[in-house]
Amino acid sequence: VTAPAPGSGTGATAEASTHRYSVGELRDFAARVFRSAGLPEGHADTAAEVLTAADLRGIDTHGVARLHQYYEMLVQGRVNPRADVRILRETPSTARMDGDNGLGLVVGPAANELAIEKAAAAGSGWVSVGNSNHFGIAGIYSLRALERDCIGWVMTSSPPQVAPFQGVGRMLGTNPIAIAFPGRAEPPMVMDFTTSAISFGRLEDAIRTGGALPEGTAIDREGRMTTDPHAVKDGGALVPLGSDAARGAHKGYCLAAMVDVLSCVLSGANWGPFAPPFPADLPDSGRRVGKGLGHLFGVLPIASFREPDEFKEAMDHWMREFRGAPAAPGTGGPEIPGHREHHSSVRRRREGIPLSGTVVEGLRHLGVRAGVLFD
Amino acid sequence: VTAPAPGSGTGATAEASTHRYSVGELRDFAARVFRSAGLPEGHADTAAEVLTAADLRGIDTHGVARLHQYYEMLVQGRVNPRADVRILRETPSTARMDGDNGLGLVVGPAANELAIEKAAAAGSGWVSVGNSNHFGIAGIYSLRALERDCIGWVMTSSPPQVAPFQGVGRMLGTNPIAIAFPGRAEPPMVMDFTTSAISFGRLEDAIRTGGALPEGTAIDREGRMTTDPHAVKDGGALVPLGSDAARGAHKGYCLAAMVDVLSCVLSGANWGPFAPPFPADLPDSGRRVGKGLGHLFGVLPIASFREPDEFKEAMDHWMREFRGAPAAPGTGGPEIPGHREHHSSVRRRREGIPLSGTVVEGLRHLGVRAGVLFD
Repeated sequence: VTAPAPGSGTGATAEASTHRYSVGELRDFAARVFRSAGLPEGHADTAAEVLTAADLRGIDTHGVARLHQYYEMLVQGRVNPRADVRILRETPSTARMDGDNGLGLVVGPAANELAIEKAAAAGSGWVSVGNSNHFGIAGIYSLRALERDCIGWVMTSSPPQVAPFQGVGRMLGTNPIAIAFPGRAEPPMVMDFTTSAISFGRLEDAIRTGGALPEGTAIDREGRMTTDPHAVKDGGALVPLGSDAARGAHKGYCLAAMVDVLSCVLSGANWGPFAPPFPADLPDSGRRVGKGLGHLFGVLPIASFREPDEFKEAMDHWMREFRGAPAAPGTGGPEIPGHREHHSSVRRRREGIPLSGTVVEGLRHLGVRAGVLFD
Repeated sequence: VTAPAPGSGTGATAEASTHRYSVGELRDFAARVFRSAGLPEGHADTAAEVLTAADLRGIDTHGVARLHQYYEMLVQGRVNPRADVRILRETPSTARMDGDNGLGLVVGPAANELAIEKAAAAGSGWVSVGNSNHFGIAGIYSLRALERDCIGWVMTSSPPQVAPFQGVGRMLGTNPIAIAFPGRAEPPMVMDFTTSAISFGRLEDAIRTGGALPEGTAIDREGRMTTDPHAVKDGGALVPLGSDAARGAHKGYCLAAMVDVLSCVLSGANWGPFAPPFPADLPDSGRRVGKGLGHLFGVLPIASFREPDEFKEAMDHWMREFRGAPAAPGTGGPEIPGHREHHSSVRRRREGIPLSGTVVEGLRHLGVRAGVLFD
């Protein structure tokens, strides 16, 4: 088993492919696809920016390879292309928003931006937003906050795939948490991880490749541990981070529940088992207790606590100390969360983003449907 | 292996003992011991209140059984009994504080109270505090916020016991996170858990009882997985929540690092491997990069986001839905984090707090040293 990059939900890359595109080309194509599905130009640009940030960072599962899934939700009328994201309630440092059933790639940036504005005015900013949809990679929102010398904190609910500790069945999303801290000379430290033992993408990979899941990461429909991905699809579930009682799975359950309540109960979105499916071909119970999916954005300006330069120097020291620690046998030693993705981003801006033949074919097919040339 | 209560770092209780004391008796004794070590009356009362809240909730490892450890730190002059907790920097919704090397049981409540006040004024409140010491159970601070209809969020660093993912050696604390959400008819949901696979208390238990650790929870001094608690004590370390690469230990590493940065780098406390030891008999490298230990307190009033009654009703629904989920084989089914501790608290207020003969003996011995009668 290959260790995933710390700070990344997935480790899949397509560097071996011979097709390379500049981020500008991919962003432009994605924006045109979003416009063809009815998004206003500004929203289409924002959504394309968030989407292709995943490609830059090497999180290929969450980039343009997924564009057709967002497109499908839009053309099926399940997502509102002309969303009017509104504030329902606010204080100097907080807001609750309604995403008007818009693309998460549009609602997320709007809520994050409001949290950043609140933070500039009141010293910190917290925005809980419901009636949203899948918002891409969580880490990108944290990085936006970081551009303003803020610590950016993001959580989101997702469709149910995870069993509660000591329970059977899919009741919680893989509910990721992201947070980013700036360095001075060092790249930022960016954590971005699901609160289940493995991500949903890892399960999909196993089904696609015919491989087994790692021990202790999933259960079947009866609640027995299984490594068979088909048993998971067939009424089983992923398990919370920690895997089992002895290793602390009640903690992963606590984390997933925390994300669920802060993202959904606080915003009035569908919590736990009631979260709507994404992509469109996932099963849908049709049962709802609120509106759409929910996210939480938190922004803490560093200057609210100490001099940003001092903080960044201390972060450099932190990162060097941990990177310099002795390596566990058979590993390359401790990594700093987010640095692998940072280096991918630098390299891909320069050399272009590699896409597999399958992904290119998919984008061409999507281009034909949307009336936008991809070549 | 017995499953620990969700939301609790430890599951140890002493219900079988025949010695029972009212919480008032224990609180009064603890307050007098703190006063005898030089604390002003108000601080002594606060510290005793936080300490005995752990006994009420059934977290016996963190209650009066530990009083002698705090006392030792005070009489050795390692903790300042007359701490003047100060604000170093503030905004309408945030503050950074200096704990003046006071007892964490005094510094923690002061910082938490300031976060609650900020939240009342600005819609949310965040306080990072350094130059502090061990502050007891994290969950109790979240419960204080909850009394004002706020979601209370708490993190703290702790002495290094945990290896970074892919690393060897003790570089991070078990760094707990706590958060609490109120119900309407249901007891509050209170998460309170360490970000390592097992708690430090679990390691101490294994050493005391001669038992083995669960598989996948610790490494020896060479970084090899071990179940021998003595190999852990002898230069080994606990591992982050997730246990290994396949099960997501990089995520537990991210969580522990997040707590470390928010509690210590933000407040100017000693981060990671530089955190000072507690109790006094733990080894101390003597290397420092800041002042004392650090904590972070976050307070989000529910009314900043939605009507508290609406939120609490939704929480009741959430808790009933999860408690009603089918049970995994061999378990009693999903529990709601913090409910076990809530029921302990109700029962122990009524029936008294059971203490083992060993703990009673220890308190009598402490009483003799402090000049305070315990009977």
